Amino acid sequence: MQTPDLRRVKITDGFWSAFIRLVRETVIPYQWEALNDRVPDAEPSHAIRNFRIAAGLEEGEYGGMVFQDSDVAKWLEAAAYSLAAHPDPELERTADGVIDLVTAAQWEDGYLNTYFTVKEPGRRWTNLTDCHELYVAGHMIEAAVAYWEATGKRKLLDAMCRFADHIDSVFGPEEGKLRGYDGHQEIELALVKLYRATGNERYLRLSRFFIDERGREPNFFLQEFGRPGYERHWESEKGKKPHLAYFQAHAPVREQEDAVGHAVRAVYMYAAMADLARECGDASLKAACERLWRSITRRRMYITGGIGSTHHGEAFTFDYDLPNDTVYAETCASIGLIFFAHRMLLLEPQAAYADVMERALYNVVIGSMAADGRHFFYVNPLEVWPEACRKSPGKHHVKPVRQPWFGCACCPPNLARLITSLGRYIWTADDRTLYAHLYIGNETAVAFGGTPVRVRMESALPWEGTACLAVSPEAPVRFRLALRLPGWLAGKPRIRLNGEDVRDARTEHGYVIIERQWRDGDAVELTLPMEAAWMEAHPAVRADRGKVALVRGPLVYCFEEADNGPLLAALSVSPEAEPDVRMEDTPWGRIAVIRAEGWRDDPEPFGDALYRKAKAAKRPVTLTAIPYFLWGNRGEGEMAVWIRSAG
Amino acid sequence: MQTPDLRRVKITDGFWSAFIRLVRETVIPYQWEALNDRVPDAEPSHAIRNFRIAAGLEEGEYGGMVFQDSDVAKWLEAAAYSLAAHPDPELERTADGVIDLVTAAQWEDGYLNTYFTVKEPGRRWTNLTDCHELYVAGHMIEAAVAYWEATGKRKLLDAMCRFADHIDSVFGPEEGKLRGYDGHQEIELALVKLYRATGNERYLRLSRFFIDERGREPNFFLQEFGRPGYERHWESEKGKKPHLAYFQAHAPVREQEDAVGHAVRAVYMYAAMADLARECGDASLKAACERLWRSITRRRMYITGGIGSTHHGEAFTFDYDLPNDTVYAETCASIGLIFFAHRMLLLEPQAAYADVMERALYNVVIGSMAADGRHFFYVNPLEVWPEACRKSPGKHHVKPVRQPWFGCACCPPNLARLITSLGRYIWTADDRTLYAHLYIGNETAVAFGGTPVRVRMESALPWEGTACLAVSPEAPVRFRLALRLPGWLAGKPRIRLNGEDVRDARTEHGYVIIERQWRDGDAVELTLPMEAAWMEAHPAVRADRGKVALVRGPLVYCFEEADNGPLLAALSVSPEAEPDVRMEDTPWGRIAVIRAEGWRDDPEPFGDALYRKAKAAKRPVTLTAIPYFLWGNRGEGEMAVWIRSAG
Repeated sequence: MQTPDLRRVKITDGFWSAFIRLVRETVIPYQWEALNDRVPDAEPSHAIRNFRIAAGLEEGEYGGMVFQDSDVAKWLEAAAYSLAAHPDPELERTADGVIDLVTAAQWEDGYLNTYFTVKEPGRRWTNLTDCHELYVAGHMIEAAVAYWEATGKRKLLDAMCRFADHIDSVFGPEEGKLRGYDGHQEIELALVKLYRATGNERYLRLSRFFIDERGREPNFFLQEFGRPGYERHWESEKGKKPHLAYFQAHAPVREQEDAVGHAVRAVYMYAAMADLARECGDASLKAACERLWRSITRRRMYITGGIGSTHHGEAFTFDYDLPNDTVYAETCASIGLIFFAHRMLLLEPQAAYADVMERALYNVVIGSMAADGRHFFYVNPLEVWPEACRKSPGKHHVKPVRQPWFGCACCPPNLARLITSLGRYIWTADDRTLYAHLYIGNETAVAFGGTPVRVRMESALPWEGTACLAVSPEAPVRFRLALRLPGWLAGKPRIRLNGEDVRDARTEHGYVIIERQWRDGDAVELTLPMEAAWMEAHPAVRADRGKVALVRGPLVYCFEEADNGPLLAALSVSPEAEPDVRMEDTPWGRIAVIRAEGWRDDPEPFGDALYRKAKAAKRPVTLTAIPYFLWGNRGEGEMAVWIRSAG
Repeated sequence: MQTPDLRRVKITDGFWSAFIRLVRETVIPYQWEALNDRVPDAEPSHAIRNFRIAAGLEEGEYGGMVFQDSDVAKWLEAAAYSLAAHPDPELERTADGVIDLVTAAQWEDGYLNTYFTVKEPGRRWTNLTDCHELYVAGHMIEAAVAYWEATGKRKLLDAMCRFADHIDSVFGPEEGKLRGYDGHQEIELALVKLYRATGNERYLRLSRFFIDERGREPNFFLQEFGRPGYERHWESEKGKKPHLAYFQAHAPVREQEDAVGHAVRAVYMYAAMADLARECGDASLKAACERLWRSITRRRMYITGGIGSTHHGEAFTFDYDLPNDTVYAETCASIGLIFFAHRMLLLEPQAAYADVMERALYNVVIGSMAADGRHFFYVNPLEVWPEACRKSPGKHHVKPVRQPWFGCACCPPNLARLITSLGRYIWTADDRTLYAHLYIGNETAVAFGGTPVRVRMESALPWEGTACLAVSPEAPVRFRLALRLPGWLAGKPRIRLNGEDVRDARTEHGYVIIERQWRDGDAVELTLPMEAAWMEAHPAVRADRGKVALVRGPLVYCFEEADNGPLLAALSVSPEAEPDVRMEDTPWGRIAVIRAEGWRDDPEPFGDALYRKAKAAKRPVTLTAIPYFLWGNRGEGEMAVWIRSAG
């Protein structure tokens, strides 16, 4: 199973092109300014300056987090994806300059890390638990592969091969090497990419070593912790034994039952496991991936595709613990969940993987970015009371409006690289089937039996459930077109081939299969009935009991104070209430706004009392919901995804 | 306004005598064992050993918190109250021994504090912000006054006068003295007690100095923080500028608008302010007390009488922020609220003060102790999901069952001293009125115009709303008997005097006044209609919106998994549902159990899905509620005070 080359997927979608343009025209340039400490009112990033210091081009002290280099890598990766889809000589010149700078900071032996070059020289590989050394390496490897794929330029790729070779000389099961791995997984999936780019199996073996070794006894992190002179990097962790589950190092990965610990680390690791399961045909690794996937998506995931129930350790907690107001649901974690879903699709096409990918993409991911491309959510709550964000210390991590570039700026560049590489997530293909996972307008080029086939998809999502595919093989060719039937389908889909209803198509794993001899000019029209539906959560999700959420197609909706007045907790609705969907022109363009008749508690004035005898009193009101991804754009106000069910 | 001498109030109440006996027979002896590090499976207290080391009787290192001495003081105070009501030569011998030990640890100049004697000699008064030096002094002063009142023995009282004189030589507005105050208020109210015991106005002036000085510019804590060599005591606070509101030192006390910061510190301070307002006739201080009282009771108090909405700083947060599951509601804070309420009653009889006192007493305070007298709640939640207590870091402070003696053991000894001095809170009297604030069976002796009057009260509370008062003056005497009409009254009270209905009694500030020439044998029968009622919270309390709580008389009820099965969030009830109250024999004695017809959500099996289209489905169930103070006695299980309203 393959995913088409990014240069061969051109996004032409009405909905998504705007985001891609925003990333290209605003986010990437803005982040470049941020990396260069030129954004007023934002904490300086120090990231480019660190490289200049490490390269000997400037005097000064290291600044920022221990993993600050990764922001440069993620920016470079996003720039590469953007260049692949949209050549831009000026951006390419800037990127080439960054690559010159990065490689100038590389050591003779291949090592690259500005923190351990500038701030703690001589302490390489002494604190894998905390210091993100391999994590940063992984991001730079991803950037190198992306830039080579986009431009054909090998400078960074070659440099990163030297770095990977160096890492391979340091880590491994052999006598004299470190039997260790990084506190923050990332190198593992990066090495698989490097292997695919270069064909060098050493990188695949090294990735596999990191995955296989993790969580084995004796535990590497505990050994490291016990080493004389070792000290935890983070102030808050000084003297504390590493909490192994936080790093997913509490058990060998194949024995892990549940998604635990830091959510981003978890899904980055699971993505690498899925890669390795596929590359190595490793059934036990595949089984572990499937188990961990179920753990997340059946028991530990918000309806928005957010993951991570607590800000303590930015982590998973336990089954069905999904508080809406103290939630973490980091943007990066949903991006990592998309990475994981995409690799599961490559391992085995199952519409359920694409459903989650779509959910995370249309809600958390695009919701994390403001329309100006300069403000971002790090945490993506499902319920917000702005006063509590300021005054309740347990909710300080939740922000009611998007913030400028963060001190720890992992999310915005991660978002940029995902959006610019969106073309990667639409299709997969094997030698006889082309799978359409996402309905995003695009043109792509594939081949079956050596015959090139161009496919053009148009889509009205997320506002309407229709898509058209135009198939143009260079010569008639037989293959299977597999169209995902989304989990949100509200009725029987209608499929028309060249104007005729297709009635007998069979369905495999949630994909309707059209197998035929395709000819130039063949057209498939797909109608996916979409309705606004009140959803309920599994009964064990205490936070959502007695509540409903409004979903339409891939979009989760939310209720905002700006539309419904303050005190959203006073609203209720019957799950029988018919939602009224209307396309409306708004400051964010033409969107589907949903209204429904519900109630607002309407108690008699309370006076001075804090508690009194209950009297049911409510009045009918029209509730207004907007897509979750647009919340928080009208100043500070309450927001809720789940509202009380009066059913 | 006075409160009768504790030796003159003998509790004879059916409900309360059991608690008092438990404290006398189990809690005080058990805590004595704990103070001596003889409780298996509990962290050692070190408290007595610290005194032995400080007195030169033993070699060793200081152990426990910086304020560990206060546990000995609170134990001694509780023992004193117990001796006042119930002489016990063996306990008195033990207490005398403790006093010998404590005074042996006192310095020549009067100073007493084992931490600064053993661990940091030479650092006295160098960290008022964190080190509780005056707080500990205050507790020992309270113990000294209580012991002198109970036994007439002056040894500790004299020692504490010397200590107070020493403190007075160190602190004050005069040139060369420290213009400081303690991070944890307590000395202020203790000095008022010492003034009342000794008549020495120096102590009143010193208390007033601490209150007047607090929060003034330049801020003492900030000055202390800026002093060369100063370091915060607590690991988590190292290097951090003190957060002044945490200590209620953000503004002069008379200018404070809202109850903020650490809840225990706050209410201890407000109690002292109310004392000083009364002793000094200080109208601006009284106005501040009234304002802060309203801030708590109208906007920042749980229905159980718990205060402190967050475990971060064990603190108040902001108006109407009353989360039920992440709540702090420390036992000590409700005890302090009772101190504050009692002093407000002394300042001005208002039934509303007694309502809050009663609410905190019958719910948080007695609920914090297990029937074995050896397990305690520190945090008193209104909603518990045991798995979350273990697995969600934001709820680690919430325990689903009572715990043995804590490392920081402030609550159990505080509880012991409150319960043993319960007689203090029932009555107040001025020269013409005897106010009955609580309906707790007791016998007391007062005097009007020089005529001694014995009053015997019998009460069926909290199970029934009836009380009888027998008034026995030595000679006929005119005075006013003021009987509180509780806020929970569910109808017109009935008052009978010597068998005849009293129809024309007037009401003042929530007290019905019976003024007459009282004769021996006069009997008042009071019937206070009590009903089980569904309560609602102020609409702005988002956490309780769409929910109701069940209250009957002074008791708040709760729903437990043991009675209602797991997943309490699936329960709902109409506020129209008629609660069925029945007295039943239970493992905790004969109590009123309340049942009501409600519903349990009854969704079709969910299978693997985490979210699906909502279908209202519920089945009728009988809900069972028990008094909140009895929750958590049947192993770990869910508990909820607020349940969904289906109204």
